[in-house]
Amino acid sequence: MSFDPTKLFAVGVSPAERPQPSPRFSFVGGNNDADNVPVAGLAEAAVTVLGREGPSLATYGLGGSPLGYEPLREFVAGSLGSRANTMVHPDDVLITSGSLQALDLVNKVVTEPGDVVIVEQATYGGMLSRLRARGVDYVGVELDNDGIIPQALEATIEGLKQAGRHPKYVYTIPTVQNPTGSVMPVERRRHILEIARRHGVLIFEDDCYADLIWDGERPPTIRSLDDVGGHVVFCGSFSKSVAPALRVGYLVADWAMLGPMLGLKTDAGSGALEQMVLAEYSPQNFDHHVAQLSAVLRNKAQVMADAVTQNFGDTVSFTFPKGGIFLWLEFLNGLNTSHYVEAAAKQGIQFNPGSEWSVDPAWGSTRMRLCFGQPSTETISQGVALLAETMGR
Amino acid sequence: MSFDPTKLFAVGVSPAERPQPSPRFSFVGGNNDADNVPVAGLAEAAVTVLGREGPSLATYGLGGSPLGYEPLREFVAGSLGSRANTMVHPDDVLITSGSLQALDLVNKVVTEPGDVVIVEQATYGGMLSRLRARGVDYVGVELDNDGIIPQALEATIEGLKQAGRHPKYVYTIPTVQNPTGSVMPVERRRHILEIARRHGVLIFEDDCYADLIWDGERPPTIRSLDDVGGHVVFCGSFSKSVAPALRVGYLVADWAMLGPMLGLKTDAGSGALEQMVLAEYSPQNFDHHVAQLSAVLRNKAQVMADAVTQNFGDTVSFTFPKGGIFLWLEFLNGLNTSHYVEAAAKQGIQFNPGSEWSVDPAWGSTRMRLCFGQPSTETISQGVALLAETMGR
Repeated sequence: MSFDPTKLFAVGVSPAERPQPSPRFSFVGGNNDADNVPVAGLAEAAVTVLGREGPSLATYGLGGSPLGYEPLREFVAGSLGSRANTMVHPDDVLITSGSLQALDLVNKVVTEPGDVVIVEQATYGGMLSRLRARGVDYVGVELDNDGIIPQALEATIEGLKQAGRHPKYVYTIPTVQNPTGSVMPVERRRHILEIARRHGVLIFEDDCYADLIWDGERPPTIRSLDDVGGHVVFCGSFSKSVAPALRVGYLVADWAMLGPMLGLKTDAGSGALEQMVLAEYSPQNFDHHVAQLSAVLRNKAQVMADAVTQNFGDTVSFTFPKGGIFLWLEFLNGLNTSHYVEAAAKQGIQFNPGSEWSVDPAWGSTRMRLCFGQPSTETISQGVALLAETMGR
Repeated sequence: MSFDPTKLFAVGVSPAERPQPSPRFSFVGGNNDADNVPVAGLAEAAVTVLGREGPSLATYGLGGSPLGYEPLREFVAGSLGSRANTMVHPDDVLITSGSLQALDLVNKVVTEPGDVVIVEQATYGGMLSRLRARGVDYVGVELDNDGIIPQALEATIEGLKQAGRHPKYVYTIPTVQNPTGSVMPVERRRHILEIARRHGVLIFEDDCYADLIWDGERPPTIRSLDDVGGHVVFCGSFSKSVAPALRVGYLVADWAMLGPMLGLKTDAGSGALEQMVLAEYSPQNFDHHVAQLSAVLRNKAQVMADAVTQNFGDTVSFTFPKGGIFLWLEFLNGLNTSHYVEAAAKQGIQFNPGSEWSVDPAWGSTRMRLCFGQPSTETISQGVALLAETMGR
C-alpha cells in the first residue's frame, strides 16, 4: 500500500522549495562581511566562558532565568544605555532565537487572524509574509527621508477607526530603516509616540540594524522616550552587528508583555552557547568591532552606489543610506523590477524586487533592494554592471 | 492615560509565571549531570571549527542548506547507522532548535485543532500540553514493560475509526520511554509498525533519550523497519547525550515531510555555532562520552532506586529503567501524588506528579516521575528521604 503523507497536512501547509546553491552575485538577505566576523574574539570567548561556566550547560536555560543568560541581558541593557540612551533593566530583556522569533512572539501575543496592524509603506518583507501567513491585515504609512510621516500615521489610524478597526500595533524600523536606510530624528520619534499614545496603539520598534549606523549619532530609541511606559515593544539582534548565523536577538518590554511571550516561547530557551560566547565577547569588544564593521560596510555602500550611478545613470534614484547593508533604488522610468528576477537569476544575480518589500506591490514594483553586506567590492561592481546589462541598460 | 497592554492580547494568551529560583532537591526536568558536560572537548571543538570556518557565520545558515550544518547532519546520519542500525541520508535530516521544535513542526504540519492523535498512556508532559494548546485531542494506549501493547493500539485505532475519526499519528518514545524507561523490543516495533501501516496512520517516533541506554542493545529504530517508506517521522536530540542548554535536536523524515516543515521553520536556521561545535566534537568523542555518561546515570538510577525502596518500602512499585534519567513510581496505596506537590515544594523538593505525565490524570494520580540526571547522589539520597518524610511515611 502506498502511503501519501501529504494527505495528512494541515490546511495551508505548503512545502519550502528544495535548497538551491548560492548564486554568484547575491544581493539579497541580511548576510554580512565574512572577513569581518570576529572569529578570534569569539573563539577566545568560547574557551574562557566554557572553562568558567561550561558545566552549567547541563541544565536547561543554564539553570537561570527563562529570559536568557543573565550576563548577556546585562550587556544588552548596558549597550542600549551607552549606544542609544535607553535605560533598560536586564529583567526587561528576553533573549530570542534571532529577532525573527521576536517578531513571531509579538505577533502571537497581540494579534489574531482578522486583526489589522500598521507598517511602513516599504518594510521588511519577512514581516509582511509573517502577517499574511497569520491572516493579519496590514496598512502602510508613507515614508520620507526621516521615516514615518506623522500626519500620514495619524490619518491612517483615524481612517481605520472610522472603518471600526483598531490597529494592534505600529511596526517601525526607525534606525537604519529596512529598506530605505533612513534614521528617524528624535523629534519625529516623539511625534510618532505621541500619536500612538493618544490613540492607544502599541508601537513595535525593530532596531535590528541600529548598531550599523555610520552617518550621525544614533538617536534615543522610541522606547526610551516612552516615559509613561508600556507603549513600546522593542527588538534588536546580534545578527547584523556580529553574525547572522548566530541566532541571538532580543526583545525589550515590560513584564506584562514578556510574561505572555515566555508562555508562548515553547523552545525551552534559546541556544545557551551562543548566548554565553556573545556575553563573554561583547563587553570588551562589541563597540570596537561594530565601529570597524560599519566602516567596511560604508565603503561597500559607496562602491555599490557608485556602480549603480555609473551603470544605471539617471534612470535610477536613491538616497545614500545612513547605515546598514542595503540600497533602496527607485526606477524613474517606471520599469517593473519583478519582471527581471528570472533573467537576473540566469546570470547568477539575486535581488529583492521592491514589490516584496512593499505594502502596495504596485507602488513597490518600480523599486529594488540591493544588499551589499556579503559580496566583496569587486563582486558588487561586477554584479551591478551585469544587472544593468541584464535589465537592458 | 494609562495603557494596559494585556487588553491587546490574542485569545488564549496567558502569561508565564515569573521565574523562581531552583529548589534544593530538583527531581524534575531533562537536566543532566554538570560534572559530565564535556567542557574541554567542546571548547577545543569551538576553537578548531571557528578557526577553520568561522567566517561562514557571516551568512544565514552558514550559506548552506536550510536543513542545517551539513557535517552535523552527516554525523547524525552516521550515528543512527552505527548506534541504531538505521540507514539515513544526511538530506533526510533537519536540524532543529532542540527536539521541542521538532515536536512543534510535526504538530504544525500534520495536525489541526479538532484532530485526534494517539499517544502512550504515560508520556512526555510537554507533548500533552502542546496538544492541548493546539486544540488537538489525544487518546492513550496502554503500556507494558515493553512499551505500547499492540492489541491495545489496534483496538484504539479501530475505536476511533468507529467514531468516524482517523488519528493523525501515533506518538511513541520506544527507546528509554518517558517516563517508564522501558525499551521496546524489535518484534514489538515491527508489530506496531505493521498495525500503523495497515490503518494508514503515521508513526511519530521520539528517540531523544535513546543514546542513554545502559541495559542491553539499542534496537533498530521503527523508522529503519519501514522498508516501504514514509510511515515514520523520527526525532532525536543532543540535549540528553551532550547538554540540554545547547538547543540542538533533529528530525529525520522524507522530503515530502521536511519540505513543509522547512516552510514553517521561520527562524532562519537554528543556532550555527552550537551545530558547528557539536559536529566538530562528535565524530571523535560522542560514543566514548555517552558510554561514560550512561555509567554515571546508571549509578544515579541505582542510588535513587535504593533510596526509594529504603524510604517508601512496599508502598511504592517501579521497574528499574533501561536507561535515561528518571524513575516512574506507582504508589500502591492509592495516594494522589498531586496532593503533595505544595508540601514538597516547601521542603525544597520538586517532582512531576504522575497526572501531568499521563493521558488520564486519574490513572496517573497515583504515579510520580523522579529525575536523577542533575542532582548528586548525596542530594538524591537526602531528597528522597525528605520526600518520604514529607509524604507522611
